[in-house]
Amino acid sequence: MAIDFRSDTVTRPSKAMLDFMIQAPVGDDVYEEDPTVNELEKYTAEHFGFEAGLYCSSGTQTNQIALKVHTQPGDEIICHEESHIYRYEGGGMMINSQASPRFIRGNNGRIIPELLQDQINPDDIHYPVTKLVSLEDTANRGGGAVYDFNDILKIKDFCTQNNLKLHLDGARVFNALAVNQCDPKVYGKPFDSISICLSKGLGAPVGSVLLGSKDFIHKARRVRKYLGGGMRQAGIIAAGGLYALKNNVHRLIEDHQHASLLEKHFKTVTWVAEVLPVTTNIVVLVLKDATKQNHYIAALKAEGILVTAFGKGRIRFVTHLNISSDDIQKVCQLKLEV
Amino acid sequence: MAIDFRSDTVTRPSKAMLDFMIQAPVGDDVYEEDPTVNELEKYTAEHFGFEAGLYCSSGTQTNQIALKVHTQPGDEIICHEESHIYRYEGGGMMINSQASPRFIRGNNGRIIPELLQDQINPDDIHYPVTKLVSLEDTANRGGGAVYDFNDILKIKDFCTQNNLKLHLDGARVFNALAVNQCDPKVYGKPFDSISICLSKGLGAPVGSVLLGSKDFIHKARRVRKYLGGGMRQAGIIAAGGLYALKNNVHRLIEDHQHASLLEKHFKTVTWVAEVLPVTTNIVVLVLKDATKQNHYIAALKAEGILVTAFGKGRIRFVTHLNISSDDIQKVCQLKLEV
Amino acid sequence: MAIDFRSDTVTRPSKAMLDFMIQAPVGDDVYEEDPTVNELEKYTAEHFGFEAGLYCSSGTQTNQIALKVHTQPGDEIICHEESHIYRYEGGGMMINSQASPRFIRGNNGRIIPELLQDQINPDDIHYPVTKLVSLEDTANRGGGAVYDFNDILKIKDFCTQNNLKLHLDGARVFNALAVNQCDPKVYGKPFDSISICLSKGLGAPVGSVLLGSKDFIHKARRVRKYLGGGMRQAGIIAAGGLYALKNNVHRLIEDHQHASLLEKHFKTVTWVAEVLPVTTNIVVLVLKDATKQNHYIAALKAEGILVTAFGKGRIRFVTHLNISSDDIQKVCQLKLEV
Amino acid sequence: MAIDFRSDTVTRPSKAMLDFMIQAPVGDDVYEEDPTVNELEKYTAEHFGFEAGLYCSSGTQTNQIALKVHTQPGDEIICHEESHIYRYEGGGMMINSQASPRFIRGNNGRIIPELLQDQINPDDIHYPVTKLVSLEDTANRGGGAVYDFNDILKIKDFCTQNNLKLHLDGARVFNALAVNQCDPKVYGKPFDSISICLSKGLGAPVGSVLLGSKDFIHKARRVRKYLGGGMRQAGIIAAGGLYALKNNVHRLIEDHQHASLLEKHFKTVTWVAEVLPVTTNIVVLVLKDATKQNHYIAALKAEGILVTAFGKGRIRFVTHLNISSDDIQKVCQLKLEV
Repeated sequence: MAIDFRSDTVTRPSKAMLDFMIQAPVGDDVYEEDPTVNELEKYTAEHFGFEAGLYCSSGTQTNQIALKVHTQPGDEIICHEESHIYRYEGGGMMINSQASPRFIRGNNGRIIPELLQDQINPDDIHYPVTKLVSLEDTANRGGGAVYDFNDILKIKDFCTQNNLKLHLDGARVFNALAVNQCDPKVYGKPFDSISICLSKGLGAPVGSVLLGSKDFIHKARRVRKYLGGGMRQAGIIAAGGLYALKNNVHRLIEDHQHASLLEKHFKTVTWVAEVLPVTTNIVVLVLKDATKQNHYIAALKAEGILVTAFGKGRIRFVTHLNISSDDIQKVCQLKLEV
Repeated sequence: MAIDFRSDTVTRPSKAMLDFMIQAPVGDDVYEEDPTVNELEKYTAEHFGFEAGLYCSSGTQTNQIALKVHTQPGDEIICHEESHIYRYEGGGMMINSQASPRFIRGNNGRIIPELLQDQINPDDIHYPVTKLVSLEDTANRGGGAVYDFNDILKIKDFCTQNNLKLHLDGARVFNALAVNQCDPKVYGKPFDSISICLSKGLGAPVGSVLLGSKDFIHKARRVRKYLGGGMRQAGIIAAGGLYALKNNVHRLIEDHQHASLLEKHFKTVTWVAEVLPVTTNIVVLVLKDATKQNHYIAALKAEGILVTAFGKGRIRFVTHLNISSDDIQKVCQLKLEV
Repeated sequence: MAIDFRSDTVTRPSKAMLDFMIQAPVGDDVYEEDPTVNELEKYTAEHFGFEAGLYCSSGTQTNQIALKVHTQPGDEIICHEESHIYRYEGGGMMINSQASPRFIRGNNGRIIPELLQDQINPDDIHYPVTKLVSLEDTANRGGGAVYDFNDILKIKDFCTQNNLKLHLDGARVFNALAVNQCDPKVYGKPFDSISICLSKGLGAPVGSVLLGSKDFIHKARRVRKYLGGGMRQAGIIAAGGLYALKNNVHRLIEDHQHASLLEKHFKTVTWVAEVLPVTTNIVVLVLKDATKQNHYIAALKAEGILVTAFGKGRIRFVTHLNISSDDIQKVCQLKLEV
Repeated sequence: MAIDFRSDTVTRPSKAMLDFMIQAPVGDDVYEEDPTVNELEKYTAEHFGFEAGLYCSSGTQTNQIALKVHTQPGDEIICHEESHIYRYEGGGMMINSQASPRFIRGNNGRIIPELLQDQINPDDIHYPVTKLVSLEDTANRGGGAVYDFNDILKIKDFCTQNNLKLHLDGARVFNALAVNQCDPKVYGKPFDSISICLSKGLGAPVGSVLLGSKDFIHKARRVRKYLGGGMRQAGIIAAGGLYALKNNVHRLIEDHQHASLLEKHFKTVTWVAEVLPVTTNIVVLVLKDATKQNHYIAALKAEGILVTAFGKGRIRFVTHLNISSDDIQKVCQLKLEV
């Protein structure tokens, strides 16, 4: 079987997780009567110090709902130009929220707080109304880079001064917390909403939780409805999320160590020009010869190693709970004919 | 435990279904690699004679995606004014598709084919472009009424003549098929798309399948993405759908018999003015005193019987696989103090 | 030259109006520096007792802007199913506002206040949020019918109790005022916004004014911008509106008399089954033989009389300042070969 | 009276233009019966070698309509990040078209053709569908820079190869033509649509014309309708446009000479760090001390000279037909106390 580094979304539920899922009590979540969904929402909300949570089918959905609730059509959302909400959600920010993206340059996918100055539109009919800043931690396109928490606080100050909301795309927030060692409640405080993904490094099969105030989640529930995101006996899959939160968070550090080993290895490989700095579970190789991207991907595939193209001349490896130390070793010992 | 007639969505997965679910092979469905999801999509598509299917989290989502793929902003959708797509999807038709609804009067929620004449807008900038007819079979607000298949064929003829697409909200299409005894492949033929719900009478915990041509489903997948409806290891819940399709279709006739018993009973009850004609699993009581709606609902609840208000002065019972013959008998023997 | 009864929009500016227009001081209205536009906005606002006005290119635009400012995507707008905002604005309500229309039956295009009861959606994610009632006075599709002002007040009470806004599509509000004899300031009071048309019976070449509170117009200006409705030296055409307001209001009664003569005449015509009650400047004939609609329109055209089809089996005449008593006499004396 | 350099939109119609306007034959343009509007549309279409034209109230409206007709919600539009369609149209691209902007770096507001390579999204549900390239010539934010026509042809080649449409925001296209000396028919050929502004340097009071194929304009008329952009006797203002096209094009070179004099002057001014290269009628000063932007604007205003802030630390002068050589001399002789 292939060693699948394409994404941490490819993980399969373990026997223990499945056993937990099958025993979860369920109900009709459209009536808000599924006890497992309710428990998952409560658990994640409390974990990050929020009032309420909403279980959704994907991180794209929790992000899209958050943007919609925070904005009106014609509002402006400040984000990094490599952010998932702009690049990878099928244009959803523009479709669902009719919002204008405004890009702030940054450092490996992270907004530089100082660059936010002068980025607020005046009250003038020619310009969208600046309303929201959205961060991504860890930053996928930045090679899994983690925000310095002080930078988040500086950005929050800017938001407060300018009456902006602050959203976190926390698809890999547990990877960030494993690095920055923040208390989740402290970390959650600056944000008006957080989207947490359960089906990436945590290894649950399906789902994401959106966190916010009670009023925010009340509105979010309405948006989820018309997007068709309401599920019935969702407790079965929500249980996978609960199990993951309780069992798979502590082990993320292992994925980071694996990624670090890959980084060390690929720095010595002749056809690799550069490896983006690795701090979490993402390893991005910059190729010496960008035109050979497909060649290397195919060559790795031939060896049973699956990776993804990641923009021009770049290849991405993601480590996760279905990648073992043996798998890493196998990659590091590989002599790729090039 | 209460006897829950509020909806056929409240059913809980059986032990056998759960066992099947837990053993289902899974993969990352965003990469289209979940074998169980793929099997479910193939199975339902073939069952109704379609090229392709798309598994989604809810019937609202499959409906919303279908409307979006069939129309452009500013197009017009012909439907019954009591249809689910207009009334119960949070305004999604107007939000997601920016489409104008045009209502055709009907008979217990079913469009009368003859009334479609003269309902096509001319090519004039003042009017939306008429593009789609959407039917609901069985018609929920019409008391679960089933279309005469000849009427569907007449409507299809009208659509063909006027270059309109035809969508079916088949939330309870298996109930309809149990009554009209159509071969699903014959029944599916007039439709350009069908939304099938797995979590109503069929008893699966989560999900709906959208059916259409290959090209239609290709576009639908894009819409599902930006609505956030893509799921990862969705095979676990898709397996519930597969199990339901293979095991729970034949027994729907039982729910219809139960509904019929309720109809017979409530026709004799003094505070009921009328029972809408029952042909499937929905029983709608029209109260003599509309103002007492909440009173009766509460009185039933006190007896452990859950039902829903269903418009002014109306109460709805829905039978399903978690309602037994004993439950029906209990209701029929009840003397409600009024 | 033909006698053009197709609409009161076909009027051409008089010599006096053109002289007034050419002498109007102008400036750049995008900078809010056009003195004539400013005067027109102030004049109409004060006339109806409003804080502010906004000059726009058409009544469709003032209506569309009003609906947008009063609602959010997913809100519900209560209107008559024959209303201009739903039927004749190219689906704009659904495109620009993503709002759900909810129809209240009425009497010649006028909502019956009593029917509003029970038409407010509960706070439930399945339903749009009911937010606005929109009236049309006079009601075009109702044959120019005028609201009883007491009915407007009853509707306002309902709005107040249910926290709804009330908009008036006043495309022909001056025709209504000529009949109901209300003081415009008293008449304007129940409404949160009014759209006034200058290019119908008033005879100005272009434009409409939207009235509302200062805050409402501030928001409306933003919407006008992104619809592309901002004009530069608009004072030239705004002057036509000012001239019309000051000179052409008192004479509307003449158009009503003309319409009344047409009504009397067509009641005696053999091929006319019915004439909708005439109170203003619109005369709607219901034909005995609906299939001959195009035949009669062509026959009238052959005699130099232009009219419009107005739904199945109906023909509409609109009187206006370019229709003289002689024109009316000519029509009344015509013996149409049929 | 102040010398108003804020924009070329502030020009007032001359006596001769007004005389021409007042004598123009008019009709109801919603019925497409206004002879002057029809003539203007035909004239501009033929001038640039297009099949058809559509008169609209503003350049924002013609741009917005073009983007809407060329795209579907979720499509991607390639433009310069300083382009008017993204920056100055109130977020309209995202509101009206729900399109994703994708920015290509450039040179004084002009896209560099070579940078388009690799900027087409693959057919993958994560990405918007790349559909349109939009250019602006002259480029306002680039200081009125003019495209090299060979660059436009290179961009067209790229569009053809990638099945993209090409739109021109030609708000100041006549200024560009005065510089590049292209035949308008040759210049127009690469574009699928052009938005022409009549109320900037040309000096007409109101309006813009959108050019395209017959089918494109047919669709555009529908969009104009629901934006509320349809006008009735629009011939009066359209006549101003016709007059401008026939009389004010040749004189644009004068505005360019004036701008050139300002450039020369400001290069010698101590508080100016840099003047963007001047080729047309826009002069952008980069201040030495960005924080003094408001100070200089006020100081100029005190001398009767109106200019605008133009991004951080920049001031813009625009020359036009209401700016005389004397005015330019006055500015050049001014000793601003700073």
